[in-house]
Amino acid sequence: MCVGIGVIGVDLGGTNLRVALLNSDGVILDKRKEATQASFGWKFIVERLVAAISRQREIAVQKGLDVKTVGVGAPGIILMEKGVVVKSPNFPDWNNLPLREHLETALHLPVVIENDANAAALGEQWRGAGRGIGSMILLTLGTGVGGGIVLNDKVWHGADGMAGEIGHMTLVPDGRSCTCGNTGCLEMYASARGIVRSYCEELGKTASDTHPALQEVTSENVYQAAREGDAVAGRVMKDMGRMLGIGIANLINIFNPQMVVIGGGVKDAWPLFIGATRVEVMKRAFQVPAERTEIVPSLLGDDAGVVGAAAAALQKIESR
Amino acid sequence: MCVGIGVIGVDLGGTNLRVALLNSDGVILDKRKEATQASFGWKFIVERLVAAISRQREIAVQKGLDVKTVGVGAPGIILMEKGVVVKSPNFPDWNNLPLREHLETALHLPVVIENDANAAALGEQWRGAGRGIGSMILLTLGTGVGGGIVLNDKVWHGADGMAGEIGHMTLVPDGRSCTCGNTGCLEMYASARGIVRSYCEELGKTASDTHPALQEVTSENVYQAAREGDAVAGRVMKDMGRMLGIGIANLINIFNPQMVVIGGGVKDAWPLFIGATRVEVMKRAFQVPAERTEIVPSLLGDDAGVVGAAAAALQKIESR
Repeated sequence: MCVGIGVIGVDLGGTNLRVALLNSDGVILDKRKEATQASFGWKFIVERLVAAISRQREIAVQKGLDVKTVGVGAPGIILMEKGVVVKSPNFPDWNNLPLREHLETALHLPVVIENDANAAALGEQWRGAGRGIGSMILLTLGTGVGGGIVLNDKVWHGADGMAGEIGHMTLVPDGRSCTCGNTGCLEMYASARGIVRSYCEELGKTASDTHPALQEVTSENVYQAAREGDAVAGRVMKDMGRMLGIGIANLINIFNPQMVVIGGGVKDAWPLFIGATRVEVMKRAFQVPAERTEIVPSLLGDDAGVVGAAAAALQKIESR
Repeated sequence: MCVGIGVIGVDLGGTNLRVALLNSDGVILDKRKEATQASFGWKFIVERLVAAISRQREIAVQKGLDVKTVGVGAPGIILMEKGVVVKSPNFPDWNNLPLREHLETALHLPVVIENDANAAALGEQWRGAGRGIGSMILLTLGTGVGGGIVLNDKVWHGADGMAGEIGHMTLVPDGRSCTCGNTGCLEMYASARGIVRSYCEELGKTASDTHPALQEVTSENVYQAAREGDAVAGRVMKDMGRMLGIGIANLINIFNPQMVVIGGGVKDAWPLFIGATRVEVMKRAFQVPAERTEIVPSLLGDDAGVVGAAAAALQKIESR
């Protein structure tokens, strides 16, 4: 006997595959995590996805839920309308992979494929920090800086599904070289990698390039050093906060959003950078939108992806 | 005998007041321009607006058109939902002026008040360079740099109606001081004022500060000098194009739009800067969205405002 509607959300990362069963209010009823094992190739991954989703579907039956749709958040360039993964940095053999078609054929369920950063943004907006907020921007400060833009409850995808590359906004025209080919991207200053680089550069001023500290620095080391009163690490975190603030001020002047949510691993160092971020935002953005924009940490953590993928899937069947 | 629907579009500038009658396809049937005479105060302006709109309404009757709505584009901070002009740089005595209420009371017609830059963007999207394009961004390069963002055929207003301040995107964190209080805004480099300043700074390198040329430089002088082969002026225009390109690359990475339209007086110098702009965009933005984004000059010129104001008014009655 069915008592409600279920939806399955998938967060397909390069390292972990997370699959969750949610009810139509976005409450997670069951979730599983397993290693992705990307190196085994796309057929293997598709089979794993089908198996993991089918398992959650069985759990749904036990709970009296009828699973109507499946959402999958995946890294890389996604053509959402076609359900195709054009390219994905974590899955080298994925070239124009028709992931939706593969899954729909195996599952006999409608499937939606969404970019992982967009899914996380939608997840935070639906059930996390942005609950009840129609328009918000998520910045995920991890190895790089990811972005997701939610306007009037919908992800803004842009003409090719490539909107939201906020981490590659130029902030320093002749600044650090970025992996994307540009120079001076926000990502080069406000990511974990950017923090490590800034710290090494700072130490380089006072120590030789072969300074042993430079060989094994992680962003966590820098946060810890800053917490313990290390002046260089503290300055690096403030500088990072300042650059983040410039990026957010730009977003505020452009979008006049209700909220900016900050997630990713660097969020753990929140007290070390957020003061400098807020000062910079107030200094640079117009007063009315700057004062109204809430800048808050993400709430869902690792669940943002599965929740947002489920939200994207539900939005799709509702709009049909 | 009525044969169709008419709409009146108003572009209320600090210098000129433009009022046009359009049909529901956005074709201008009649337009008038008069001096605004802002110094006479808000009551005077409201009376002039009522008189000018009433005149177009009479013309509509003669043409057999039934005017259903009026759109007014005005400079400054507009609360569109309330029809209130919070502040306007060109009208110093306008403080929370309920312009819509005043006009609706006098005209007995629904009136929509829109920000002038947003109206121009909507005008270009409806009947100008962006015709048939759902999502585009207009940059108006005049004394300052104005912006209007159209997403899925609608202006993106943001939470306070203050979105689209693209001219105040920080491009050079420790750059030139802007009138908005920030430093290094796009406007400080890509506007007519920015061009004059760059030219003066360049000459300052080779001539004394009292160089007579610096006293009476206008942006038009700089374009003309560049066209005549002046190396300094040519370099200034290329640098301006480069900064514009950085700003557009940021917009492309953030929005993945279909088109960026460039209007305003500086557009007249198009061949002097657009090459540098395109090079910078391709260098900095992601390839797929960069290649797909058309960067084109505006088509409607001084008509963009009245056409867009009319479009905003029609959208409002259609959404009711």
